[in-house]
Amino acid sequence: VPSFRLVLEYDGTDFAGWQSQAQGERTVQATLVAALAEFTTGPVRVAGAGRTDAGVHAEGQVAAATLDTRLDAATLLRALNAKLPPDLAVVAAAPAPDGFDPRREAKGKLYRYAVWNGTEPSPLRRRRWHHVREPLDVPAMRSAAADLVGRRDFASFQGAGSSATSTLRTLTRAAVEGGARGEVRFELEGDGFLRHMVRNAVGTLLEVGLGRRDPGSLPALLAARDRSRAGPTAPACGLTLVRVDY
Amino acid sequence: VPSFRLVLEYDGTDFAGWQSQAQGERTVQATLVAALAEFTTGPVRVAGAGRTDAGVHAEGQVAAATLDTRLDAATLLRALNAKLPPDLAVVAAAPAPDGFDPRREAKGKLYRYAVWNGTEPSPLRRRRWHHVREPLDVPAMRSAAADLVGRRDFASFQGAGSSATSTLRTLTRAAVEGGARGEVRFELEGDGFLRHMVRNAVGTLLEVGLGRRDPGSLPALLAARDRSRAGPTAPACGLTLVRVDY
Repeated sequence: VPSFRLVLEYDGTDFAGWQSQAQGERTVQATLVAALAEFTTGPVRVAGAGRTDAGVHAEGQVAAATLDTRLDAATLLRALNAKLPPDLAVVAAAPAPDGFDPRREAKGKLYRYAVWNGTEPSPLRRRRWHHVREPLDVPAMRSAAADLVGRRDFASFQGAGSSATSTLRTLTRAAVEGGARGEVRFELEGDGFLRHMVRNAVGTLLEVGLGRRDPGSLPALLAARDRSRAGPTAPACGLTLVRVDY
Repeated sequence: VPSFRLVLEYDGTDFAGWQSQAQGERTVQATLVAALAEFTTGPVRVAGAGRTDAGVHAEGQVAAATLDTRLDAATLLRALNAKLPPDLAVVAAAPAPDGFDPRREAKGKLYRYAVWNGTEPSPLRRRRWHHVREPLDVPAMRSAAADLVGRRDFASFQGAGSSATSTLRTLTRAAVEGGARGEVRFELEGDGFLRHMVRNAVGTLLEVGLGRRDPGSLPALLAARDRSRAGPTAPACGLTLVRVDY
């Protein structure tokens, strides 16, 4: 049974995440499985590189799709996009080696978190930007973010309900870019991410940006390995899985 | 009765345009009037600088709002944004002189039209970008667009049902920017625009970009003053009223 490596783009606003606990929810995985089922009479299996939460977007999620079909990858891509709803598309497809596991084999991921830092709401940004009204100190956030780079124990940023056996991860980049006109972007790149890790890191950095937390306090926060000392989980809408590297 | 100059941002996807012919449609104007009515017991009048079509977005639409209220402009702005739906916001408000007419007094407007020129659909761009699958020749479109700059008769780009007495308009800028990764943007700036003029100009330029129309043919097309010789009206979703100048 052939496997395909699919690169997916989706607007997470109207999805209950990549995969759901409850039956019947509209998830990215279930939507993809349903579309693939139209090209085979046998079973369809889909596994994703990152289990994005409800509301989280992707520009480059990677999935393995396994199904009994004689379609080649390019034909499957076109046929799938004709079946998928407008908020989900396959942007690339290739044959995958037997047993390809997009999560375990991923060498790295890049996430972007977007904040609209204007005094008024921005209707055109509302689906992809988290709105923070009070002015953010971008240099302070940038300095604090630099302390996250390296091999670190990120237990303080791990959300509840995680099954990770180790909380050690390596961040290769933690950048904060402040746009001239209120657009602030966080980019976190690393070899792996704990549940809610990006959103908890951003929620903590936003407290630094609002002057409520010392920019130099992140090493002690990580050392504490205590989720209750970190900031709140930033809303899902601002987060995008940009890329998965192999 | 005081007047206010409001700058509006909206996601046009779910609006039936700025103002509608039929009663009961969800228009930007009617939504704004309904929100303003909560701050007065008297009548509310709202006039816009540009009557954007259904599906067209705005980053900087300008409106005059006239209502009997004792709120100052800054307080009205905050109070309005608390009442307005998430796809419409007031981004600036100021007192307006008596009889301020945002349409007649506008000295110029800037429109942007966004095209996603990728082989596959882009879910994250679907609300604001028109998707053109075949590769576009950006230099050819740029060269053709340059012939639109100046004081010209744009009758060939005027949509049906227009009440304009003159079809002469001055374009000060007609730019085509080709992004590295499939994002193509048209920017048209001028002293005024006929009904559907931007979308008809873009539809014509896209034919140039697809090699179906000679890049040097636009002067003759304008001279013909014949709508049937221009290209199709490009879809509303790609168009944004960026700015109105006074």
